[in-house]
Amino acid sequence: MQDITPDDLTTRAGLARAITWVESKRADHQDKAQHLLAQCMPKTGHARRIGITGVPGVGKSTFIDNFGSMLLEQGFKVAVLAVDPTSKRSGGSILGDKTRMEHLSMNPNAFIRPSPAGETLGGVAKKTRETLLLCEAAGYDVILVETVGVGQSETVVADMVDLFLVLMLPNAGDELQGIKKGVLEVADMIAVNKSDLDEKAAKNAARHYRNALHILTPVDPSWDPTVSTISAGKNRGLLELWSVMEAHKKATIESGSHSKRRSEQQLRWMESLIGESLMQAFQQHPNVQTALPPLRNDVASGDIAASLAAKKLLSLFMAHPTH
Amino acid sequence: MQDITPDDLTTRAGLARAITWVESKRADHQDKAQHLLAQCMPKTGHARRIGITGVPGVGKSTFIDNFGSMLLEQGFKVAVLAVDPTSKRSGGSILGDKTRMEHLSMNPNAFIRPSPAGETLGGVAKKTRETLLLCEAAGYDVILVETVGVGQSETVVADMVDLFLVLMLPNAGDELQGIKKGVLEVADMIAVNKSDLDEKAAKNAARHYRNALHILTPVDPSWDPTVSTISAGKNRGLLELWSVMEAHKKATIESGSHSKRRSEQQLRWMESLIGESLMQAFQQHPNVQTALPPLRNDVASGDIAASLAAKKLLSLFMAHPTH
Repeated sequence: MQDITPDDLTTRAGLARAITWVESKRADHQDKAQHLLAQCMPKTGHARRIGITGVPGVGKSTFIDNFGSMLLEQGFKVAVLAVDPTSKRSGGSILGDKTRMEHLSMNPNAFIRPSPAGETLGGVAKKTRETLLLCEAAGYDVILVETVGVGQSETVVADMVDLFLVLMLPNAGDELQGIKKGVLEVADMIAVNKSDLDEKAAKNAARHYRNALHILTPVDPSWDPTVSTISAGKNRGLLELWSVMEAHKKATIESGSHSKRRSEQQLRWMESLIGESLMQAFQQHPNVQTALPPLRNDVASGDIAASLAAKKLLSLFMAHPTH
Repeated sequence: MQDITPDDLTTRAGLARAITWVESKRADHQDKAQHLLAQCMPKTGHARRIGITGVPGVGKSTFIDNFGSMLLEQGFKVAVLAVDPTSKRSGGSILGDKTRMEHLSMNPNAFIRPSPAGETLGGVAKKTRETLLLCEAAGYDVILVETVGVGQSETVVADMVDLFLVLMLPNAGDELQGIKKGVLEVADMIAVNKSDLDEKAAKNAARHYRNALHILTPVDPSWDPTVSTISAGKNRGLLELWSVMEAHKKATIESGSHSKRRSEQQLRWMESLIGESLMQAFQQHPNVQTALPPLRNDVASGDIAASLAAKKLLSLFMAHPTH
C-alpha cells in the first residue's frame, strides 16, 4: 500500500484509505497512521466537533441526514463518524449508513464513516479520535460524532467533542426512555425530536428536562444547557438548533472554555492511552496471567484485601516487566 | 512499635493504633498494616457500610451524632469514618470530630476517625477502605462513611459502601445548593434534613428530588432510590430512615445485588490500585520525567497527537521500566 500524504486526504477515497490504516491492527499500518497523523496535526483543530446521542427510535439517522444536509446547503463540508462498541462490521461496508442517511451519502461534500468494529469502547474511541483529526485535516468543517449510547459511550463521545447534543422522544415517559446514568450530566444541548407527533407532550418533555438540568451544576460555567423541540423528519427547528450551536460556540470561545475543553480532552486522552498500554503490558505478563484469576476470585469473595492482591500482582510484574 | 493482632482491635486504642499503620507512609508500617489486614479478612464483611454526603450546613454532624446514638441505643456498635481530601490534619487530633459529635464521641461503643490527611482523593479512599475493613474486624456493626463532597469524593465513597445517603436542605433552591454533577446518580436514599424549619418547603424539595430521581435509571434494579424528610436535630424521622435502610438491605440481599456490589467494588479497587501503581512507576521514571512536560504542552496545544505522545513516552518507560 503506497504512502498517503495530507494532500491525498482531500479526496474521499484518500481519506477512507487513511482511516483504514488508523483502524487496522497491523503494526506497519499503525506506524503509517501515526506518521500521517503527525504530518496532519497543523491542519487540525478548526472544525466544529459535535457529539449526538439518543435511544434507538429517537430518529438519529433522519436528524443527521437532514441537519447535515442543511449544513451542506450553507456551504459546510460535513463528516459523520460513529462510536458503536457493539458494531460487528468486519469489512468496509457502509451500506447501512448509506441507506439510513440517503441525502448526506449522495453529496460529495459529506463523508460518512461507520464505527470501527471488533473493538472495546476504548479502542473505538481511540480510532474515532484519530479519524476525527484526519477529517479535520481533510477540510471538513463540521464533524458529527454519533453514538448509540451503549455502555459509557456517551461519556466517551462527550470527551472528544466541543458540544454534546442529546436527542429525546416526546411521547415516551421518562422512565420508558431509559435515560442512562450520566447522559444528562454531559449534555450541552437537549432536543426533543418528533415533536410534531404530539406537541403538548413534547413541550411537557422539554419542561421536564429543563427542570432536571436545572438541578445539575453545568459542566461549563459559561454555558447553561438548553432544551429545544424539533421535528428532524419535517425539517422543523433545525435552523434554530444550529443558531443555539453558534451561540454555544461564541460563548465558549469568549470564555476560553472551548480551548480549555479541547486541551483537557487531549491530555486526558494521552493519559488514558498511557494507562491502557501500561495495563495491557501488565495483563499480558505471563506471571500475572497465571496469578490473576485465583486472586480475582479471592478478592471478589472478600477472602483477601484488594490492596494485598494488587501488591502481589505488581511485584510479579515489576520483577521482570518486559518479560 | 509492637505488633497488633486482630484481637487487639477490640479496644478503641488498639484499633486506632492499627489505623495509624494504615495511614502511615512508612514502608515498614505499610507492611505491618498489610499483614494485619490479611489476618483480619475472615472477620470482615458483616457490617452495614453506609455513605453519607451533603453540602456544608446541611447538618451532617448533627445527623451522624443523633442517628448514630439511636443505633447505639439499639445495641449496635457504630464507627464513623470521613473522606475529606481537603483535610489538612497532620497529627492525630480528633478534637474537631469530638466536638461536632458530642454524644457519639462519649459512647464506648462508638468509634470516630477523621479523614486521613495530606493525601489525594485516591489515597484517602485507599486508606479509608482499609480502615473500614479494620473496623469490621473490630466488631463494629454499622460503619458510617461521611464525605464533604469535594471533587469526586461522593463517587468514591459510594463505591465503598452498601448504601449511599444524600442529605439535602429544604429551604435553599436547588440551584443554590450546588448539587454536584453525579451526586443524584449515586444516591440510594435522599433525606431532606431540617424539615422542621419549613415543612412546606421540605415537602416541595422532596417532590422535586423524587421527580429528578424518576428521570434517572436506578443503578440497582432491585432498589428505587427513596426520598424522606427528616429533622436530625429534633430526632424526627430517624427511626423511619433506619427502616428504609433495613428495607434496602433486605431487598438488595434477596436480589443478590448486595454481594454483587461488594464484589465489584473490591475488584474495581484492586484494578485501580494496580493502575495507579503502574502509572506511578511510569511517572517516576527519570526518562519520562524529562520528556513529559514538553510533550504535555505540545498535546495541550494540539501540536502533536495524543496517541503519538503516549507512544513516545511509553517506549521510554518500557525500554528500562525498573530504572
